[in-house]
This record gives sequence, C-alpha cells and structure tokens, in this order.
Amino acid sequence: MQQYFSKSKKENKLEINEEDIHHIKNVMRMKDGDKIIIVHEEIAYNCILEKDYKHGTIESIYKKDTEKTYIKAYIPILPEEKMSFIIEKGTEMGVSEFTPINFERSKFKISKDKENKKIERWTRIAKEASEQSRRLIIPKIDNIKTVKEIEKIEGVNILCSLDKNNVKEIKNVLNERTLCDKITIVFGPEGGITKSEEEEIENKGYTKTSLGKNVLRTETVIINVCSIINYLNG
Amino acid sequence: MQQYFSKSKKENKLEINEEDIHHIKNVMRMKDGDKIIIVHEEIAYNCILEKDYKHGTIESIYKKDTEKTYIKAYIPILPEEKMSFIIEKGTEMGVSEFTPINFERSKFKISKDKENKKIERWTRIAKEASEQSRRLIIPKIDNIKTVKEIEKIEGVNILCSLDKNNVKEIKNVLNERTLCDKITIVFGPEGGITKSEEEEIENKGYTKTSLGKNVLRTETVIINVCSIINYLNG
Repeated sequence: MQQYFSKSKKENKLEINEEDIHHIKNVMRMKDGDKIIIVHEEIAYNCILEKDYKHGTIESIYKKDTEKTYIKAYIPILPEEKMSFIIEKGTEMGVSEFTPINFERSKFKISKDKENKKIERWTRIAKEASEQSRRLIIPKIDNIKTVKEIEKIEGVNILCSLDKNNVKEIKNVLNERTLCDKITIVFGPEGGITKSEEEEIENKGYTKTSLGKNVLRTETVIINVCSIINYLNG
Repeated sequence: MQQYFSKSKKENKLEINEEDIHHIKNVMRMKDGDKIIIVHEEIAYNCILEKDYKHGTIESIYKKDTEKTYIKAYIPILPEEKMSFIIEKGTEMGVSEFTPINFERSKFKISKDKENKKIERWTRIAKEASEQSRRLIIPKIDNIKTVKEIEKIEGVNILCSLDKNNVKEIKNVLNERTLCDKITIVFGPEGGITKSEEEEIENKGYTKTSLGKNVLRTETVIINVCSIINYLNG
C-alpha cells in the first residue's frame, strides 16, 4: 500500500497534498474507498481515500513508534546520479538529516545559483524514499556547507576514514553501550578526505573510524554504517 | 593503487591477464616501474610493473588475511541495472557466491540462450568490484536456479522475509555466538516471495528473518545484511 505525508488533520480526516493527489489519481490509479496510509506528525494511519481525492478518513493507527536515533549525515557532493542514490538509500536506512559538504577532493561542484534547485530535488527524493520505505519523517536536506561548518553534537561523532593509522574500528566506536540519541557521521568523497580536513574535523571532537579492510564506495559506506546502527538499536 | 588478479606465479613474478594488460596500458596509463597490487591464490602482493606489461615483480605482501565467513547469496532476477548493482555492492560487502533465482514474482526473466552471456557479464562485474574493493577472491556466479534447487548448508540459513508474523528479528538470528563459517541468505524479489515459496524454503531449514520496520529495496537489503555480518566478525 502506498504511503503519503499530510500536513493537516481535522478530526478524523487527513488532508492530502496537491502533488500527491496527482500521484494517487494518475500514477497509482486509486479510486475513492481505496485503502491508503497517511502520515501526520510522525503517526501513520490506515485511511480510506475520499471521493474528492483531497482527504483520507482515518480508520486506525498503522505505526507510531518514533525513531530511536537521530542520524545526521555529512555527505560529499557527488555527480547527481550518486547523490540521488545516497539520499534515497540513506533515507531508507534511517538518516534524519543530510548536509552536503564541499570537500577539497569533491570533483563535482554546485554553483550558488543552482543550489536551491538541487536542494528542492534532493528533498523530493527524500520524501519519495520515506514514503516507499514507510518512515514517519522526511529527512531534512541542509544547504551546502564547508568543512569548517561541520558541527559536533552531544552524542557520537564519527569521521569515516580510509586511514590505517590512528583509527578506531567501527565496532569499538559503536556498540550498545555508546549508542545514543544522536549520531553525526562524516562521509568523505571518493579519493578520501585530505589530511588537513581530517585534522580539522578530528579537532572538533570527531572520532576517526575505520570500516574494515575492504575499500567501499561512498554510497555503500552510508548503508553500511546505518545498518550497524539499526542492528544495535534492535 | 589498482589491484589485479593473477592466475600464475613463477618465483617472484606474477603473470598479468590479457584483458588486464589493456586496462593497465590504456585505461590506467601505467608505465613500467609503477607500483601495482596483484593477487594470487588469496594473497595480495605489492608489485612493480615489468617492461613487457605482462608481469609484476613481487616486492612484499600487501594483505593475506582470508575472509572469516563464506556468504552465499540467493538473489532474485531483476532488471540488468539492479542486477549489476547487487553484484557490485554484494561483492564489495563480502559475498562469496551469488545464485540467481527465478522467483514466482520475478517480473524479469532471462531466456536459456541468454543465460551464459549474462553470467559472463555478472562475473566480469564481480571481478571488477573485487579489484576495486581489494578483496582477495572473485565471487562465483552460479547458473540461474529455481526455488526447489535452493540448498541448506551447515551453518546459518537465512530467509529475508517481509512477513510480520512468525519471523525472527535479524538480531536474534545473527549474533556473535551463532556466527559461523558459512551463511546462506535468500533475498526475495520486489513484491516479496510468495507464501508457498516461503514455506518451501522454510521447510528446507531456513529461518524466516525480519530486517526491521522499514521497507527496504532488494539492493539495500543485501548491503544491510552483509554489514551486520561484517560488524559481528569485527
């Protein structure tokens, strides 16, 4: 069953967004009376589609467990195909916030005048991936930032490193005891983060972390780390 | 540094395969005397490229740890783009053997006369992903099989299920104590495995396993499960 997000609820009716009405009518070819899942304020409801296609009438609660860990991912700017992929997969795996970072070795750049359009696009991808994977929130996509602007949070702060020296194994950084409400993770570009960037991020309080002996691509790393967090969260 | 697989070793020289010579010369534009990693019988060597481009001279051992767990993945037949993706990512994450399965709900079919060509293609993808991620083996790609032909092995046998009833959480199926030398995992097609197929696989001795509340796509599931296995393996 398809899931949609709603911004407003009146009694037992949830309003369906304009752009979703088109999807419901013309892509899913649903009819009034059909079952539909609508999420409002982090609760997913089993609903019945109304005749006007603009509302769903609540029948019961489908899911309302909130997510245990807020995962904030700093991701490198990559070609659009990989970027979409990372946002889609990261969303499926439980990332709550993405901040694109202009690393020194990012081969791909986005000019200031194209930034808003890109963020709009990535937000749409995050929304669709949330609907498809039945998450209760749509991840936030931040503006593009620099390494200087990376922030440390109260919680676990991980810097994924290709370095072999002075790194901790992911197993020693993430385990049931250290797992907490908030985790930020810095994922580097292909070719890695430069030494001076690594130092800058480490100095903020991030732990340089190794993901094992195999060399993984950025898009694989993000699913890898989130899988471990979800596993530990049970 | 680029990695290649070699089939023969004479004293301290490793022979480079025909197709790799082309890659070394024309894609990587390497010159004699350049450093190169060559793998022979599960040992990766730091080598120096010879003048004839046909050999590398061993300087030292780069890596020789064997992989702890043999992961065999039964994967659904999907459109080529997804198939390549699953083989690439699965290889990066440590899968040792892929067996494509014709599930009832596989929308995509491969005719008998095209099977060999497909397997050749998938083997090439596995080889390239092994080189890129610096693995010491190239995963084997089996012929396309039916659900009936799925085999139980001595070890952990997992059936990834979308079912909500009668399933065990992945955390209870995979943990450090149950982790063993061999794991087989059955990944279903989009839309899931049919009830009768699930029963058939369960009857062989597979444990129906849930991966959590989010609905993941097949290509995400495979990275997800392998991440947990690698995490537990340390």
